[in-house]
Amino acid sequence: MQSTKIAILGATGAVGQEFLRLLAERDVPAANIRLLASARSAGKTMAYGDDALTVQEVSADAFSGIDIALFSAGGSTSKQWAQVAVDAGARVVDNSSAFRMTDGVPLVIPEVNPQAIGDAPIIANPNCSTIIMNMVVWPLHQVVPVERIVVSTYQAASGAGQQAMIELETQTADILAGKAAMPTVFPVQSAFNLFSHNSEIDADGYNIEEVKMIKETRKIFGAPNIKITATCVRVPVPRAHSESINLELSAPMSADRAREILSTAPGVKVVDDRVKNYFPMPIDASGKDDCLVGRIRRDISRDDERGLDLFVCGDQIRKGAALNAIQIAELIAG
Amino acid sequence: MQSTKIAILGATGAVGQEFLRLLAERDVPAANIRLLASARSAGKTMAYGDDALTVQEVSADAFSGIDIALFSAGGSTSKQWAQVAVDAGARVVDNSSAFRMTDGVPLVIPEVNPQAIGDAPIIANPNCSTIIMNMVVWPLHQVVPVERIVVSTYQAASGAGQQAMIELETQTADILAGKAAMPTVFPVQSAFNLFSHNSEIDADGYNIEEVKMIKETRKIFGAPNIKITATCVRVPVPRAHSESINLELSAPMSADRAREILSTAPGVKVVDDRVKNYFPMPIDASGKDDCLVGRIRRDISRDDERGLDLFVCGDQIRKGAALNAIQIAELIAG
Repeated sequence: MQSTKIAILGATGAVGQEFLRLLAERDVPAANIRLLASARSAGKTMAYGDDALTVQEVSADAFSGIDIALFSAGGSTSKQWAQVAVDAGARVVDNSSAFRMTDGVPLVIPEVNPQAIGDAPIIANPNCSTIIMNMVVWPLHQVVPVERIVVSTYQAASGAGQQAMIELETQTADILAGKAAMPTVFPVQSAFNLFSHNSEIDADGYNIEEVKMIKETRKIFGAPNIKITATCVRVPVPRAHSESINLELSAPMSADRAREILSTAPGVKVVDDRVKNYFPMPIDASGKDDCLVGRIRRDISRDDERGLDLFVCGDQIRKGAALNAIQIAELIAG
Repeated sequence: MQSTKIAILGATGAVGQEFLRLLAERDVPAANIRLLASARSAGKTMAYGDDALTVQEVSADAFSGIDIALFSAGGSTSKQWAQVAVDAGARVVDNSSAFRMTDGVPLVIPEVNPQAIGDAPIIANPNCSTIIMNMVVWPLHQVVPVERIVVSTYQAASGAGQQAMIELETQTADILAGKAAMPTVFPVQSAFNLFSHNSEIDADGYNIEEVKMIKETRKIFGAPNIKITATCVRVPVPRAHSESINLELSAPMSADRAREILSTAPGVKVVDDRVKNYFPMPIDASGKDDCLVGRIRRDISRDDERGLDLFVCGDQIRKGAALNAIQIAELIAG
């Protein structure tokens, strides 16, 4: 990656800032990084190690000489600029939902389906909840195919961006000071509360976040028939998502076998101490690369051993977004 | 209830205080209420409407003349004093887990199995998560028997008592002030975090809270074969529990039919506005008698119409504890 020329579109957001931290960890020189944004943000500077990078206005020329463009500025910006970047010779790793379900655009979790990247000009980064769930479901699915997933999420504020994280903090302080909550980023009070994910509801009564988890998993796994139901909920946690996952497998698998498989799965750390009652928590997952998994147990509501319960926590900004995209970029850079 | 002589053992706790609010709402005169506690708390006074009630030390004599004794002082206190109160002529409604699974002790949710009370001297109040789940599962189960439940909880601090609620608030303020979290009531940080329920883990890997939800539901429903798996999680919310519930029914039921059934269920309020994206939230359930239910939808992971997803919120202190016990007391008082 050190010699790869990288553009970041949307560098000032929560994911964009994480891109810079991850590139710095990989010793990518500042000279190889170009920050792009709308005219409104052009001219801003951002710290990068000991350097300062100046944000340039995005344009067709701005992608000239770029090998990989990391997009994290929302779906409409991605739709506007992805083909422009490709025409300029870059390959695009897009963090928005714009192209995820588009035929011919690979949807990639590097630990799951790296081979899907091929020579595609645009590669889509999956939804954060999808990535975190599948970091632990995929290794099991490889051994015994998963037939059905029932998942309930506990999603952090960061999934709605940096302003949502700030709102959670300031609103919490307001409530502790006896003031009324004044939601602006989220539609309802986020502090000391939780609420159904604030994305549009489809005709089946599922919100779009839930639909993403279902459809994206099928595409990533190459398993169009895997059955999934999801309930997505936002909780007053800053930046790590948690998920309670119930699996129905096509053949028996003991909890011990599942724990053994997950203990060697890349990007996964088993945190499953029944004696100390210590399991995955958002504060332990925040800022970490690994997704934490625990509460690994046989589903006792089934007579056979084809059911498993799991609980996973993963950093929404890191593995749920920026890290996954950087890993894709590393595979492209070779 | 106005002429019923009522003793409260454990009046200074979160549930005890709620008992007093509920009795005041029912115009029970102060003269008919006796507050009991250990010697340590004896002599304290508690406001009751315009009156002040003085806490007396619990003893065999203290139950003399009492019709109904409401216990909420923990399992060991219940075991010590329940039979004493019964011998003194009182009937005991016990909020602890001491007698819930004891043969011959009815475990009662008044909206579900009021007939179980009979002339039993001790009646057990179920676990809070069990009550809140079954307020919405029972009405559906009455129409089409439920075969299997997959539930994930989002449990408030209040379930661990008043000190846990205070800890959530002070710890949140500490973190906002840049201080480290210093957990004392909960084993880990509760502010801006969530964690697997801090009750002991059994040989199957289930914690005791989850086991309560499973076993108590079977007893309350009189359905020893109903299949349940549960994942119980504490979230940084003060006093209302939420639960994401996936149901497998023995025959098809549409989401519209489920909504219709729940809209006339006692103690339940349907909050299910897909257009406004407005569903049950802890802040709306807190301090309310009704359990709120929404996200009522067909489980699309099934090919038939035998699956439903629901999301419920209920006040943990009120319907999850004090209100349910007071309703039992009202049935006893006749």
